Amino acid sequence: MSETISKSIDEFINSLKYDGSGLIPAVVQDVNTKEVLMVAYMSPESLKTTITSGKATYFSRSRQKLWVKGETSGHFQHVRRILFDCDRDTLLLEVEQEGVACHKGYHSCFFRETRIGTDGRIEEVYCLEREDAQKPE
Amino acid sequence: MSETISKSIDEFINSLKYDGSGLIPAVVQDVNTKEVLMVAYMSPESLKTTITSGKATYFSRSRQKLWVKGETSGHFQHVRRILFDCDRDTLLLEVEQEGVACHKGYHSCFFRETRIGTDGRIEEVYCLEREDAQKPE
Repeated sequence: MSETISKSIDEFINSLKYDGSGLIPAVVQDVNTKEVLMVAYMSPESLKTTITSGKATYFSRSRQKLWVKGETSGHFQHVRRILFDCDRDTLLLEVEQEGVACHKGYHSCFFRETRIGTDGRIEEVYCLEREDAQKPE
Repeated sequence: MSETISKSIDEFINSLKYDGSGLIPAVVQDVNTKEVLMVAYMSPESLKTTITSGKATYFSRSRQKLWVKGETSGHFQHVRRILFDCDRDTLLLEVEQEGVACHKGYHSCFFRETRIGTDGRIEEVYCLEREDAQKPE
């Protein structure tokens, strides 16, 4: 087994690779069901807030500011594990999801899948049931 | 249950949202274990190749060309499901992984996790065992 490396929180955050906008993508997975819930983006500051608060905090690209997931909907994500990939340019969060992850009311943002019909066309099929009314996030 | 929408393959590909580089991120999940294996990026052309061939094909940002996953390593990904998120700007692929997904020899690229030590420092812990010697990908 490889050795464990110890870093300060800031050293760890600085050791990751951010894109041209200074962000790193985070895949969010339900710690219990392993369902992929969403993908969001983190700035160094939002990652630090996530680590220190235990609540998933992203950087909203549309609003250009920190976004505590659930701050308006109550659908917080309690972070149980943070993993990072071989290139150190993608995060994987395992979370306990309060309520639903998707602002459209589905447990996961990935509530539609494609199927190829006999005519060679793509069918967009809803593969989850909506659990919650739509709420602003 | 919501209605199914039918589109041609090109209509479906054109209905997705691509980033400033013309790419869309794809989260890749093991269809059997639900383990998240990697995140890669697709161009419209690589997505079309993926749909028509059934083998995950990405756009390599470092090499700036189509990249059939496994073309050099033999570690192909056979695509079983393609999902897309609420914003149509992220894909989720469920795949049967031949061999290992990570070029560093791990089943998943997410083979390290963080733990917060009693001293408040971050420990980078290997959470997977290497299964395969490192190979060029």
